Amino acid sequence: MAAPRVLVIPGDGIGPEIVEATMFILEKAMDLYGFDLEIRYAEAGDIAAREYGEPLPHETLELARNWADAVLKGPVGETARDVVVVLRRELGVYANIRPARSLPGVESVKPIDLVIVRENLEDVYAGIEFSVPGAAFAVKVVTEAGTRRIARVAARYASSRTGRVTIVHKANVLRVADGLFRDVARRVLEEEGISVDEMYVDAAAMEMVRNPARFDVVLTMNQYGDILSDLAAQVAGSLGLAPSANIGDEKALFEPVHGAAWDIAGKGVANPTAMILSAAMMLDYLGYHEAAHSVETAVEQALAAGLATPDLGGNLSTMEYAQAVARFLAAG
Amino acid sequence: MAAPRVLVIPGDGIGPEIVEATMFILEKAMDLYGFDLEIRYAEAGDIAAREYGEPLPHETLELARNWADAVLKGPVGETARDVVVVLRRELGVYANIRPARSLPGVESVKPIDLVIVRENLEDVYAGIEFSVPGAAFAVKVVTEAGTRRIARVAARYASSRTGRVTIVHKANVLRVADGLFRDVARRVLEEEGISVDEMYVDAAAMEMVRNPARFDVVLTMNQYGDILSDLAAQVAGSLGLAPSANIGDEKALFEPVHGAAWDIAGKGVANPTAMILSAAMMLDYLGYHEAAHSVETAVEQALAAGLATPDLGGNLSTMEYAQAVARFLAAG
Ligand SMILES: CC(C)[C@H](C(=O)O)[C@@H](O)C(=O)O
Ligand SMILES: CC(C)[C@H](C(=O)O)[C@@H](O)C(=O)O
Repeated sequence: MAAPRVLVIPGDGIGPEIVEATMFILEKAMDLYGFDLEIRYAEAGDIAAREYGEPLPHETLELARNWADAVLKGPVGETARDVVVVLRRELGVYANIRPARSLPGVESVKPIDLVIVRENLEDVYAGIEFSVPGAAFAVKVVTEAGTRRIARVAARYASSRTGRVTIVHKANVLRVADGLFRDVARRVLEEEGISVDEMYVDAAAMEMVRNPARFDVVLTMNQYGDILSDLAAQVAGSLGLAPSANIGDEKALFEPVHGAAWDIAGKGVANPTAMILSAAMMLDYLGYHEAAHSVETAVEQALAAGLATPDLGGNLSTMEYAQAVARFLAAG
Repeated sequence: MAAPRVLVIPGDGIGPEIVEATMFILEKAMDLYGFDLEIRYAEAGDIAAREYGEPLPHETLELARNWADAVLKGPVGETARDVVVVLRRELGVYANIRPARSLPGVESVKPIDLVIVRENLEDVYAGIEFSVPGAAFAVKVVTEAGTRRIARVAARYASSRTGRVTIVHKANVLRVADGLFRDVARRVLEEEGISVDEMYVDAAAMEMVRNPARFDVVLTMNQYGDILSDLAAQVAGSLGLAPSANIGDEKALFEPVHGAAWDIAGKGVANPTAMILSAAMMLDYLGYHEAAHSVETAVEQALAAGLATPDLGGNLSTMEYAQAVARFLAAG
């Protein structure tokens, strides 16, 4: 079997540091589990925009589209939209999977263990905006086909967990648009034998703080998912721990939920956990389930042992933390 | 001076109980501060829909539009949209003011003291939705005039507080629509000498949990305000404490942020605090600043003394709690 092809985009700010730490872990995982990845690097983001005049250089896009099986992407700065929204669309990665869970040794607001399944290509993110003098408009787009396929993804995740999905929408006000999403999603989930409930997005934001343990799989629309996933990550303890997978029928893109954090870039203190866990999601997607699981466990063991970067109250540098994780991985 | 005319809509679920408790406090405030309100009652909500075939009966709408100076509205059940979104539009109450603050004796997630100034008539709430086979659409509407007037409201609130406004938007993705909101709002605020910063809505949801004390006045669009205000209320301790004012150039509507809570309706245990504080916002709007302030202080004193309804761990009934508040008001 040919080695899967992974395009690595280090990105901006702390991106290169946390990607370096992550690649170190990936190398260890390959050694230990005896598999191979063909890796290429490409640029995108604010720095790329300055150097090549475009945040997502043509060559990067071509590699992502025509060469890579999976893209592993660091955070991107102010040009994030031109990189990530475009990549998501061009790669057709319609499902944005964002787990949020309490980790050992990390203080959560409340115990939480959920997965947000965020529709990734429609909603106001579809890019339909226009203006007239004195007014501007954006069109929220919901398709039956788009809703059906994201609901099937939610069903798949629910089956491997507790079998419960909460559909989050605002169909009491947006009866047509959110109403379509709610109705189609509910039908698909019920057909698949999943137990379904619903919640308005405002109530869901509140519940995410009041009683996050009531959620298992949260199925929602693009922008609600954007907002709720940052919130859930913070409830779990820190945005610095939140990984994500953008998955389509042929391609996939893995990235931390957090941003470029320019203020601490280059200091060697950035927390690479979200990036490492994103890479673990990639390993799982590529079929290396055991390696994926072991990387996750090693991260948990390191954190449980109080081995952490300064943002979590630890005193390790980015690479020292990665080395600690690698030791647990090897001991695993 | 003729007494201001207040239309009271008890609403659904716990509505009648918490309105009764609130009217009890209002009567006390009138006695103590020597002013008068002309009060009429009207129906709206699920019950009204069942009785009259429409959730917002014509007579109620007419009274609100042509008779009342202010409307004091309890929560409404599943028909909430047909009552509150319609009333907001018909009354032209373009500014939804939602304070969230930690109260003595109430456990907050983090100390918080902010006001969300939510644009109340535009955005995807403007009611422009349509569909074709297989797809549905909603139009997010942002006007320069609408943004300018809500920004002026935010400036007014900021001037009476710390002078800081955070504009919350998603202009990195919604460059045209949210971009217009951001640009116009920033211009107005800067002209008024207000210190302005900005935050993306996903980051704002996270910050609302991580460090809510960094916010003072939050100026945002209709749906972001909907989501963030429920969240902020929960961070402050409970949705049961969150009041709101919907203010226009001629009319105003006051209502708790919470819903009808059918599950505890009729048991006499509902927490009337959000409703009482909404009435206090109404007194302030009507010019009875001292009475308004005293009602707020009395609520704080009752809570600080551990006098509370069961939702906050207390053992008082709705009316016993109102009596406790009234005693502090009288002792004032
Ligand atoms: C950077 C931005 C375009 C992006 C989004 O809104 O999707 C980010 O916030 C995210 O959640 O991945
Ligand atoms: C009931 C609903 C229409 C309303 C809204 O979304 O505005 C409510 O959630 C609120 O925030 O007042």
